[in-house]
Amino acid sequence: MGSAGSGAARSIAVIGTGAVGGFYGSRLHAAGFEVHFLLHSDYEQVARDGLVVTSPWGDVTVKDAAFYASATTMPPSDVVLVALKTTQNHLLQELLPPLVGPDTTVVMLQNGLGVEAQAAEVVGDDRVLGGMCFLCSNKVGPGRIEHLDYGLITLAQFTPEKWYPGTHDTSSIRAVGITDRVRAVGADLEHAGIPVQLEPDLVTARWKKLCWNIPFNGLSVVLDATTDELMDNAASRELARDLMQEVRVGATACGADIPEAFAVQMFESTSAMKPYLTSMKLDYDAGRPMEIEAIFGRPLRSAAERGVHLPRIEALCRQLQFVDARNAAATWQPAAGL
Amino acid sequence: MGSAGSGAARSIAVIGTGAVGGFYGSRLHAAGFEVHFLLHSDYEQVARDGLVVTSPWGDVTVKDAAFYASATTMPPSDVVLVALKTTQNHLLQELLPPLVGPDTTVVMLQNGLGVEAQAAEVVGDDRVLGGMCFLCSNKVGPGRIEHLDYGLITLAQFTPEKWYPGTHDTSSIRAVGITDRVRAVGADLEHAGIPVQLEPDLVTARWKKLCWNIPFNGLSVVLDATTDELMDNAASRELARDLMQEVRVGATACGADIPEAFAVQMFESTSAMKPYLTSMKLDYDAGRPMEIEAIFGRPLRSAAERGVHLPRIEALCRQLQFVDARNAAATWQPAAGL
Repeated sequence: MGSAGSGAARSIAVIGTGAVGGFYGSRLHAAGFEVHFLLHSDYEQVARDGLVVTSPWGDVTVKDAAFYASATTMPPSDVVLVALKTTQNHLLQELLPPLVGPDTTVVMLQNGLGVEAQAAEVVGDDRVLGGMCFLCSNKVGPGRIEHLDYGLITLAQFTPEKWYPGTHDTSSIRAVGITDRVRAVGADLEHAGIPVQLEPDLVTARWKKLCWNIPFNGLSVVLDATTDELMDNAASRELARDLMQEVRVGATACGADIPEAFAVQMFESTSAMKPYLTSMKLDYDAGRPMEIEAIFGRPLRSAAERGVHLPRIEALCRQLQFVDARNAAATWQPAAGL
Repeated sequence: MGSAGSGAARSIAVIGTGAVGGFYGSRLHAAGFEVHFLLHSDYEQVARDGLVVTSPWGDVTVKDAAFYASATTMPPSDVVLVALKTTQNHLLQELLPPLVGPDTTVVMLQNGLGVEAQAAEVVGDDRVLGGMCFLCSNKVGPGRIEHLDYGLITLAQFTPEKWYPGTHDTSSIRAVGITDRVRAVGADLEHAGIPVQLEPDLVTARWKKLCWNIPFNGLSVVLDATTDELMDNAASRELARDLMQEVRVGATACGADIPEAFAVQMFESTSAMKPYLTSMKLDYDAGRPMEIEAIFGRPLRSAAERGVHLPRIEALCRQLQFVDARNAAATWQPAAGL
């Protein structure tokens, strides 16, 4: 077991040991943190063979670690990393309470908008952070994760929105800056070699992440395409750019200003990415429900409540809802028995 | 041979004997008109076995009629019905001249905007009409056509647009009303039992047709769906309605007012339609180029030239351009020989 610096190693619970949670958990475990992994369908295999992570940062196999099949058997930890799909967030009510001690911090390593509020309903506002992962990582089999590229986590403190209709600039009331909790979790991650960026305003950080997720997750599903196919064709590239521009318009409506230079840079870095199937495309192909509500529905409603409509994003959202419903119908399994 | 009323039967050339041209040509032939059919890949089979059309209006087999493999061997006719795909309109330069006598009328039975201008470049403005077909008909094999439902043709006189930037209402300068040519072709079609509607303004009639074609052709391809699937899901139905609304906005910009009641009625009649694969979906599935330019590109540019942008339609157009390019790459065949 490595050293976690001065003092005892902090303890970390990973809720959802998949492409995101499994990857970051494996780095933290390798760096000497006491990591508790919650698994679901992969539990038996991982308890037996370990968690196998290949990565350009160095391959890691986590064996004989603290693997759990149920949150009720897990101890409270200093940090809880929530890396479930947002479509599973109704489970937080049941999963979080056993893991939370008096000073536990809960970090939502999820996509979309409004996920921190879902955790805050269970554990209170102050202890919840958002973590935006800029990560190309896939689960390639039970307990087997392939990290392809990137890995930055942007951290920001959650605080309930104090926006009232009629107010326009919400950022000043909302932003609480970089809190001690943000700094502490940031230090943990950096200690494990994970690049970290600390952001003073969660809502801005969330909308920045949507700049990528809305065009590329959405189009990859509807057009059955990898990121490089979308970037290589002039029509889909223009559409992705227009969608990203609409995300900026929505962000501005919600008091989150995203500089054009940020969007341009994010767009260009996608060109440089290796061909990549987005998380939403992987969900769709596997017949799982897609994170439409967190990535599309809530941002659209947030903007609409402030009188701003985003027609291209709304159109793409409806296309996703259509194919999601068809997917659900196709993968529906009759109950066992008579 | 039936009677074409008083006097000699008018002669009619059908350019493109597929789902549209083959269907209407067969009705005109059965009604006693002298019909000359131009065929391409189906020529051998149709010359041997005839043109077989099944229809709720009565099945028809056209045998021993005037079938041609080349326009250069065809005589001039009173009426030329152009029922090519718009993606073939570069052929009009070569196909139309042999068929046009001093008083020939050319009727463009095609989808989209701006197709009459393409014919007018070859044969002059005054003799060109637009014909909007509200028809569910498919080609089910070589020389075999299955008419499913509907069949109305809306006819209108072409006249070059006299719109200049800065002018807003173009309808008064543009509309020429119901001309003698429109009346004459209308009478021919009605004589063959084809329901006809005469419209004073071609541009309005074209945009009305786009109210259906833009949402349903576009979404059927991108979402891989039949019309009934699109109408049965709340999300795709809402999106189709929003797209139709944007068509009305584009029409207004171009001086063509489409009453909301018209759009509502067209939308509701789609619910009542039998499950139907649109022509664009059939083209896509067969690996043929889609009529994106006529149905999406020109309407978008017409509106944009007048300062009106249609974001949902533009987004759908770009999605179609993406899948069209991929389709073309997949169905590309190397040249024969070395």
